[in-house]
Amino acid sequence: MDVKTRIERALDAAVAQCETADAPPGLAGALRYAVFPGGQRIRPRLTLAVAMACGDDRPAVTDAAAAAIEILHCASLVHDDLPTFDDAATRRGKPSLHRAFSEPLAVLTGDAMIVLAFETLARVGVEAGDRLVPLLLTLGRSTGMPYGICAGQAWEGEQKIDLSAYQQAKTGSLFAGATAAGAVAAGYDPVPWRLLGERLGEAYQCADDICDVAADPEKIGKPVGQDEVHHRPSAARELGIDGAKKRLEKLVKSAIDAVPDCPGRDQLRKAILAQASGFLPQHVKERAA
Amino acid sequence: MDVKTRIERALDAAVAQCETADAPPGLAGALRYAVFPGGQRIRPRLTLAVAMACGDDRPAVTDAAAAAIEILHCASLVHDDLPTFDDAATRRGKPSLHRAFSEPLAVLTGDAMIVLAFETLARVGVEAGDRLVPLLLTLGRSTGMPYGICAGQAWEGEQKIDLSAYQQAKTGSLFAGATAAGAVAAGYDPVPWRLLGERLGEAYQCADDICDVAADPEKIGKPVGQDEVHHRPSAARELGIDGAKKRLEKLVKSAIDAVPDCPGRDQLRKAILAQASGFLPQHVKERAA
Repeated sequence: MDVKTRIERALDAAVAQCETADAPPGLAGALRYAVFPGGQRIRPRLTLAVAMACGDDRPAVTDAAAAAIEILHCASLVHDDLPTFDDAATRRGKPSLHRAFSEPLAVLTGDAMIVLAFETLARVGVEAGDRLVPLLLTLGRSTGMPYGICAGQAWEGEQKIDLSAYQQAKTGSLFAGATAAGAVAAGYDPVPWRLLGERLGEAYQCADDICDVAADPEKIGKPVGQDEVHHRPSAARELGIDGAKKRLEKLVKSAIDAVPDCPGRDQLRKAILAQASGFLPQHVKERAA
Repeated sequence: MDVKTRIERALDAAVAQCETADAPPGLAGALRYAVFPGGQRIRPRLTLAVAMACGDDRPAVTDAAAAAIEILHCASLVHDDLPTFDDAATRRGKPSLHRAFSEPLAVLTGDAMIVLAFETLARVGVEAGDRLVPLLLTLGRSTGMPYGICAGQAWEGEQKIDLSAYQQAKTGSLFAGATAAGAVAAGYDPVPWRLLGERLGEAYQCADDICDVAADPEKIGKPVGQDEVHHRPSAARELGIDGAKKRLEKLVKSAIDAVPDCPGRDQLRKAILAQASGFLPQHVKERAA
């Protein structure tokens, strides 16, 4: 089974658990809307790539970890798009969830998805054995307080921003969670795998900053110019598009260098390079050149 | 250690994990504000009472389960009070979280608390051993989709409400989670313990409906008359205050009857009766008499 199919099946299996006949239909529909169709699925691809490089000896655990990471990412998008944050009208080329459904349903969808992510791990908990606890802690660290994406979003509202803590929490944490979870799912120590995720997260954030300045909103399916509107730090505004593009290249190289020793190291490096080359859509690469 | 101290210490230990020096201070403060000072702590008291009746052989696991249940309850209050739901100005006798901090912080606080609840269980995961998976699944079922409090809240926005599913999910689910978690934490099968929680949840909801009609908002620390404003089903409006009071008594009796066999059964029944007698504050008991 190819990676894409594997991820979509794992996500579908997780979401389907919420779709019983006696579930409230609005929330069930909103939950599926938040997960499908996806974006690039960068984070679960990373989880799978790392697990496969480490032997992937319990594929059901890997699948659950990848699905949990992506569900948490999708939950963060739903809440970040709310009127009280970015008030985004579109996401992934369709109306944002609160526009398509309602604001109350958007809050509840995000909440239910956070629960679903942990449930998805728990459902393979027996098979995961002693990998379950580090998987849960990896997920928690990546999303909650004090270092996860909730903390990252909260830094944006602070008067005095700890910039490194902000950037690490806002994007780096879930990327580090994705690589760490892949390692744990395959029975490896997650600690050395975090650096790879952190650097890739930084690279992705840099690419995202470039897109926010240089992309066509129709082509990327979400509004641009948001960093300026929300006074967020931006590599593209600080360094210019060309400078940010150079920084992106450097970050991807340093990520490749950070791949720890493992049976499938060479192939993993190639996979990461291929994935990172998609961080910038073609039309932005051309425009930024 | 008395039950109250035990619960407050377990909650403090969980919340303290979010309060590192490099955490965003606003969110850290909001999280503590959401948990302390508490209300009656009915749900974690139930978890502890059930675990103690079942031997409480792993007290750290019991404490984590009780804290996780209460943290999820507090998270639901923070999100339910948001402008897009009840827009409540007060909660537990002080400004609601979004009024005291901000709406973005209220969304993030609820999110971070859901994560924290699962992390709290994961942190005792090694000691919990094979009790960890059923504890996680109990928490998930009580809070997410399709049967948890998220589902309950979502039913309120449906055109066609499945009334029994709504009431069960809205209040019963977290009470059933509280009793089931207490049983699991002590190594017992959770299934027979759910009925006790469901009936107590129904009793509590009935008491809450009476308060919404008959309580002094200053004394209960939150606004009243909300069921009518939000067109929510209410036992007090359907049966009148005296009728609802009779129904409450009946529900508490049926809960007592539902206590499964266990070493501390008699004492548990007494504890539940004492706790349920506090569902209605004294001034409402007098007014409703």
